[in-house]
Amino acid sequence: MPSFLAGRDIISIKDLKREEIDEILRLTDAFEPLADKGSDMLDGRIMAALFFEPSTRTKLSFESAMYKLGGSVIGFAGPMGTSVEKGENLADTVRVVENYADVLVVRHPLEGAARLAAEFASVPVINAGSGAEEHPTQALLDLYTIRRELGRIDGLKVALVGDLRYGRTVHSLAYALSLYDIKLYLVSPEILRMRKEVLAGIRGRVDVVETDDLAGILPELDVLYVTRIQKERFADPAEYEEVKGSYRLTSAMLSRLKPTGIVMHPLPRVDEVDYDVDRIPQAKYFKQVRYGLMVRMFLLASVLGAI
Amino acid sequence: MPSFLAGRDIISIKDLKREEIDEILRLTDAFEPLADKGSDMLDGRIMAALFFEPSTRTKLSFESAMYKLGGSVIGFAGPMGTSVEKGENLADTVRVVENYADVLVVRHPLEGAARLAAEFASVPVINAGSGAEEHPTQALLDLYTIRRELGRIDGLKVALVGDLRYGRTVHSLAYALSLYDIKLYLVSPEILRMRKEVLAGIRGRVDVVETDDLAGILPELDVLYVTRIQKERFADPAEYEEVKGSYRLTSAMLSRLKPTGIVMHPLPRVDEVDYDVDRIPQAKYFKQVRYGLMVRMFLLASVLGAI
Amino acid sequence: MPSFLAGRDIISIKDLKREEIDEILRLTDAFEPLADKGSDMLDGRIMAALFFEPSTRTKLSFESAMYKLGGSVIGFAGPMGTSVEKGENLADTVRVVENYADVLVVRHPLEGAARLAAEFASVPVINAGSGAEEHPTQALLDLYTIRRELGRIDGLKVALVGDLRYGRTVHSLAYALSLYDIKLYLVSPEILRMRKEVLAGIRGRVDVVETDDLAGILPELDVLYVTRIQKERFADPAEYEEVKGSYRLTSAMLSRLKPTGIVMHPLPRVDEVDYDVDRIPQAKYFKQVRYGLMVRMFLLASVLGAI
Repeated sequence: MPSFLAGRDIISIKDLKREEIDEILRLTDAFEPLADKGSDMLDGRIMAALFFEPSTRTKLSFESAMYKLGGSVIGFAGPMGTSVEKGENLADTVRVVENYADVLVVRHPLEGAARLAAEFASVPVINAGSGAEEHPTQALLDLYTIRRELGRIDGLKVALVGDLRYGRTVHSLAYALSLYDIKLYLVSPEILRMRKEVLAGIRGRVDVVETDDLAGILPELDVLYVTRIQKERFADPAEYEEVKGSYRLTSAMLSRLKPTGIVMHPLPRVDEVDYDVDRIPQAKYFKQVRYGLMVRMFLLASVLGAI
Repeated sequence: MPSFLAGRDIISIKDLKREEIDEILRLTDAFEPLADKGSDMLDGRIMAALFFEPSTRTKLSFESAMYKLGGSVIGFAGPMGTSVEKGENLADTVRVVENYADVLVVRHPLEGAARLAAEFASVPVINAGSGAEEHPTQALLDLYTIRRELGRIDGLKVALVGDLRYGRTVHSLAYALSLYDIKLYLVSPEILRMRKEVLAGIRGRVDVVETDDLAGILPELDVLYVTRIQKERFADPAEYEEVKGSYRLTSAMLSRLKPTGIVMHPLPRVDEVDYDVDRIPQAKYFKQVRYGLMVRMFLLASVLGAI
Repeated sequence: MPSFLAGRDIISIKDLKREEIDEILRLTDAFEPLADKGSDMLDGRIMAALFFEPSTRTKLSFESAMYKLGGSVIGFAGPMGTSVEKGENLADTVRVVENYADVLVVRHPLEGAARLAAEFASVPVINAGSGAEEHPTQALLDLYTIRRELGRIDGLKVALVGDLRYGRTVHSLAYALSLYDIKLYLVSPEILRMRKEVLAGIRGRVDVVETDDLAGILPELDVLYVTRIQKERFADPAEYEEVKGSYRLTSAMLSRLKPTGIVMHPLPRVDEVDYDVDRIPQAKYFKQVRYGLMVRMFLLASVLGAI
């Protein structure tokens, strides 16, 4: 019986129903031994990684996923992206590359680019991040990490911390979390608050609290999801320096986190999570990386109908 | 029985006799199912893609061809090219990389570079474009497209349209077409007329008509091969704007093309072929991409003696 | 019985005892047929090439070695290196990528970077060059070339010629040679003499002669190992021009080399070895490339426990 994802595109987390997401999380478990030992499930299949915007970590994750399933990889990172006209010509690139590959993994700076690619492609397209809103495979791996580490998603208290305005990761994740029965804290400095359109999409479905007081809510949290705050976002450098300190996680500060709480981060980090945090048992950001590999292995195998 | 190409270099279309080209076109048919399903014909063999000049599409085509035959790929695009001295050191690069790979695919901005590589390499070299004149695999895939779509090459009326002065694609193709019994229209603005040396090579062997009147000859054509006209070629921007319009294909304009005529383009296009042309049945430029993959699969398998 | 290198890192030539080096050289012989015909020894295994500093030739050598053993390759060259913070964040990169690969091959401009990577990685790390001192796989392939071409290393007279101050290759090699009973000539212009710390490490263990007179010692030599002298090292261009001439090898000059002597070079060369030298039987620098492939195949197979 082919997977319910066979031949489908993975463009937005919003395209997936909660039952479908749960099924993805459940079926990903089976890919743990394959992540260790490899498989020939996708022997002879080719993945094209079309990265119009550089993202080495995401690219390596997809490439490793494909190789661990026995497939091959072609693609580019940046160079072709710079030579093509923005927007329109993506359609031509897709119609060329679909002749060379069985699945396209697309990363693009423009909103809607992955959707456009999927419309023109006769092979499945997986969105590896496009524009400011969509990064569905990151949202799925984040959910998988929570479910795997805590046994469930419903009933949890989850905080998204840091830059909630510009980070595509937290936008996809906030939407995904809104499908579950959780309490969601949005913790950020005033100027980096969650975008209105994302808030509009999740309010009413989930209990949302916006705050800039991380210390105050810390003891309650089951999941503390941290993202980087970039200096360039602040007009006044002094304001950045002030804000930075209060959002920087240290092991001392995290002594108030529940023993069963977990700390997550999409990586790469700069200094928003102190290196001494790596040693506390609640730190799960490197396990997230491994879970991400497993989720992407599952998705590649599924859309290619190999399951 | 090994292929007549086993161990040979593919440097210039001029190195191939008409019978050899016909044999290549005939034998390429057998690679269509392998382009779909893959093969392990070149299992354990390595192709080195030495792209001293970036060309993402051609590189992806060769890489996909190698992977679909079960082989592996190493190489570079640009970075090493910029660090090596021009010309001389290519010989050293080749004598290093021939230890790492079973076949070299070379792209280089200088005339004669692929030939030089072949002289030094003990493994087969395939020219993926060098200088302004040679792009033999493009010429072969263009011929294959014509033969495949129209059943023959002899007896056709073929127009090469656009920049006939600087495009290496049309130079190789014009020569290749001159081996057949065709009528060849060379359609370009005055300042982008076909180079004298190319004309000298084909005149007498084939019926050549130079013109700037595309509309006038359109109804007669079996093959309309369009290339891009680059603004940079014109001293006077106004002249470019004027010329551009008359060489831009639209579906309205192409209503005068025979139902059995075909429109080809080496891609990428910018605006010389309107997007509405994609929908007319005579548009074959995306099929060209697929045929190119098949031709390159055949060439790799052949020079490596796997047929 | 697993190799003595199974699971180990290859960070510095100084980490290896002489008996271990001899064992590596001896066991590499068995990889010659695999370099020709390929193998599936590392089928399903993934190598990550983390090149924070570009080095196309070393990267191609490792990639070919991995593919010839049936494995796969992921990685980057430069782009990620430029985006990461220097130093500290290497640890994070390693802890991410170790999830994607079974072995890490690291090239980095900073001294100690490969060692740091090995400390954080749970998979084996091979140093492909870091800082000014360490390039252990180059030293091993150089030793292998000597042993293979001359049958032994003990008892030989070896000259390292050229830039002994800045070249990481000669630093690793000088140390490796000091484990053997040889006479070592260090031949360089005054301002490019061997670093004091390298000299301190080898003096007392091996008979060292520093000189700027290449012609004088040439007839005695068994091994003439040449490196490039870079113009940028000289404050006075005239001094460079003068020095350059006396260190430039020509076939005329090498008529005084013993018939059993060999000429080696880590490549790429610019003009320190004349092209006419390629034709003399003692020139072994292209064979060095092939031997390097074999050594790297052995090392990858060994640290991955496949032997």
